[in-house]
Amino acid sequence: MKFQADKDAIVIGAGLTGSLLSMYLAQEGLNVSIFELRPDLRKVDLPAGRSINMALSHRGISALQKVGLFEQIKKDLIPMKGRCIHLKGQDSLHQAYGVDKDHVIYSISRGLLNKILLEASEKFPNIEKKFQYRCQWMNYETNMLFVEDLDHGREHSFHPNTVLATDGAFSAIRKSMIRQTRFSFSQQYIEYGYKEITIPAQNGAHVLDPHALHIWPREQYMLIALPNVDGSFTCTLFLPYKGEHSFQKLNTVEDCKVFFDQEFPDLQEYAYDMAQQYVDHPIGDLLTLSSHPWNISGQSMLLGDAAHCMLPFFGQGMNAAFEDCVLLHKELEKHDFDFSKAYSEFWPQRKKDTDAISKMALDNFSEMRSRVRNPDFHKRKAIEHHLERIYPELYQSLYSKVSFSLQPYHKILDQELHQTMLIDQILEKNIDCSSPSTQLESMLRNIRKS
Amino acid sequence: MKFQADKDAIVIGAGLTGSLLSMYLAQEGLNVSIFELRPDLRKVDLPAGRSINMALSHRGISALQKVGLFEQIKKDLIPMKGRCIHLKGQDSLHQAYGVDKDHVIYSISRGLLNKILLEASEKFPNIEKKFQYRCQWMNYETNMLFVEDLDHGREHSFHPNTVLATDGAFSAIRKSMIRQTRFSFSQQYIEYGYKEITIPAQNGAHVLDPHALHIWPREQYMLIALPNVDGSFTCTLFLPYKGEHSFQKLNTVEDCKVFFDQEFPDLQEYAYDMAQQYVDHPIGDLLTLSSHPWNISGQSMLLGDAAHCMLPFFGQGMNAAFEDCVLLHKELEKHDFDFSKAYSEFWPQRKKDTDAISKMALDNFSEMRSRVRNPDFHKRKAIEHHLERIYPELYQSLYSKVSFSLQPYHKILDQELHQTMLIDQILEKNIDCSSPSTQLESMLRNIRKS
Repeated sequence: MKFQADKDAIVIGAGLTGSLLSMYLAQEGLNVSIFELRPDLRKVDLPAGRSINMALSHRGISALQKVGLFEQIKKDLIPMKGRCIHLKGQDSLHQAYGVDKDHVIYSISRGLLNKILLEASEKFPNIEKKFQYRCQWMNYETNMLFVEDLDHGREHSFHPNTVLATDGAFSAIRKSMIRQTRFSFSQQYIEYGYKEITIPAQNGAHVLDPHALHIWPREQYMLIALPNVDGSFTCTLFLPYKGEHSFQKLNTVEDCKVFFDQEFPDLQEYAYDMAQQYVDHPIGDLLTLSSHPWNISGQSMLLGDAAHCMLPFFGQGMNAAFEDCVLLHKELEKHDFDFSKAYSEFWPQRKKDTDAISKMALDNFSEMRSRVRNPDFHKRKAIEHHLERIYPELYQSLYSKVSFSLQPYHKILDQELHQTMLIDQILEKNIDCSSPSTQLESMLRNIRKS
Repeated sequence: MKFQADKDAIVIGAGLTGSLLSMYLAQEGLNVSIFELRPDLRKVDLPAGRSINMALSHRGISALQKVGLFEQIKKDLIPMKGRCIHLKGQDSLHQAYGVDKDHVIYSISRGLLNKILLEASEKFPNIEKKFQYRCQWMNYETNMLFVEDLDHGREHSFHPNTVLATDGAFSAIRKSMIRQTRFSFSQQYIEYGYKEITIPAQNGAHVLDPHALHIWPREQYMLIALPNVDGSFTCTLFLPYKGEHSFQKLNTVEDCKVFFDQEFPDLQEYAYDMAQQYVDHPIGDLLTLSSHPWNISGQSMLLGDAAHCMLPFFGQGMNAAFEDCVLLHKELEKHDFDFSKAYSEFWPQRKKDTDAISKMALDNFSEMRSRVRNPDFHKRKAIEHHLERIYPELYQSLYSKVSFSLQPYHKILDQELHQTMLIDQILEKNIDCSSPSTQLESMLRNIRKS
């Protein structure tokens, strides 16, 4: 407990990031008020067809551990050991994420994780949650925050000590910040959208290997599936808006049935049901969003998707947002909860990392839908696995560093060119990587230096 | 005259681009209504300290010629043949922009050019101009445009055939478009701002060479000066917001006087007056802005700064916006004024070019404030001049292609790496460029192929 009294913080948004962040702040004795636009999701059902499960990896786990939550959610997690790649007319292909037994990522329901986080926050008497309160805007001249109580149609205003905006990609606080001078901002949509489709359990069991993230890479589009604890899978179909196989072309249940039949022969028995869901579910858009500065003095601070929204193709959106909380908390401690100082020091460093993972997430889309189809890709992965196994101190793949380490994302990206060139060399010179050699070791030591 | 009757177009903004564009449209027989937020600048004075003169180059000239306006403004132009670089404690250094006598850019007052364009539009009975009309927003579902008559405090609404938005970097139409689905947008401020300062004429004469663009490159900041027809110069001081010499540090007339005295010794006699103006004038921000799509069907179309706003360091903002008008007009003709088709075909191509020139404008900032100080830079320019003179068909510098040709900006940028490498080679191998040689010619032919 750092604070005795009247220091308080307002958090906008009780989603995954806001719920976790409020506990980090409350642990320090701050009085936290959370305003959430939507109803308390512990009391209502989530609408179908909206981003149902997430891939939790090391950064996210580490952030949950700091509030003692990881053990608690373990039973709700399904470990995924690697990718299972479904090529047309071929047996499915398993590709482990890493060589270590801990190198797994976990499938978890977004709704469930959010509920657990909200429930956990009940233990803090200094966290107050207000649902169905819409953040309207913030006036930075007068330091007034305007919030509307939707239930009672009343407007409230506050003079907050500080406002932490975890209200997602369409952040209301960010909209107020954009009106301030010299706010840099970018939102870039890609020419793809997605629809979510469920494959039900059969007699309570998973119809595909539950310990894998399934991918049907089809070059110009792809389907993926993540396991749920109830035996079902949540599939996400990523399609371009225009073109041969696209949202523009695929509209009727009949056409979709033919499409699923032909393109995903191993899911044929679900084709009709999938086609029906496809037609019923909304299209989700896919965008990368970046902004800066993240703070206005100590008055407000953007975090998670409100500050940087990335594409889902590296499964790092939530993990990065959770890591934001950990790192901001560190900075707050370092500066004795001087919000202005901590915020200003925090984001310029952190933005390098979130820019880097945003770029890697975009790059990973073509890896998932296209490069995994290439035999050369599998050769490279095999080499990387050998290197990771034989020289764990000297070599970690990009995927491992992102998913199974806390190394800053921007450093990982910086090193990647060297690692790619190393694998190029190994392939070119046909160097045997299955056992240690002085040649290999010296090559690895060289890239560590560069 | 392509149209006989009821086809009309609304243009938002009667600035440089809107005024020119309306004439392009009116020439084709369209009935054009222009709504301009500000008063008619032919009747009021421009506020001081706001972007007073522009550098007109080939693309802009070519666009003006198509409405017969270039001859008319010639007397108001001052040709600038090159850069005059003022290093501290050294004689000023002249560097020609090109080798051809036509390779000059022209200094012209923004206000005067805008007045001439507005006046020229009076010749078209089918152009109607409404000043002090604020564009509020556009509803794309109902195709309604809302405009406020500020003089009378009345709101008007229209069902326009089409709306062309030339309302600048903070376009109201773009704000309405952003609310539509999947609009990608980016605004990036740089850590520099600018202030405009006038150096008066002495006995009606220019106190510096009037046929040059003057630069005082100071590595981390710079001052430039463009000549005016009345014998004065408009200087622009580009300073960072923070740091040793910055807007944060420089606040009082006394401090500024010392700064101008020390940093610009050749302007010493104006130091006090410049310091006074510095303190009195507002800081202008500097941003790059990009967006897409530029159109929503045939309903609205962004052009000029509303679509792509670049930094001023290549003097291409106005020239590119004028070229937008020329190229859009071509596309409209090609598609028989089917707005939807013409707009959709136009912008994806054009955006490649405006992205490229935006990038070159950013790159040119460090060239102007820093690289021009380097002796190596002058060696490279000398080589380029030799090549341009001896092999005009085979070599044009980046600057020449941007300023003295109509080559698409993106192609110029694509070729630049090869051209840079060529000059590297010439320097490295110490090849004599002052006269033709088979070696040089074959090197030049090689890069043309690549």
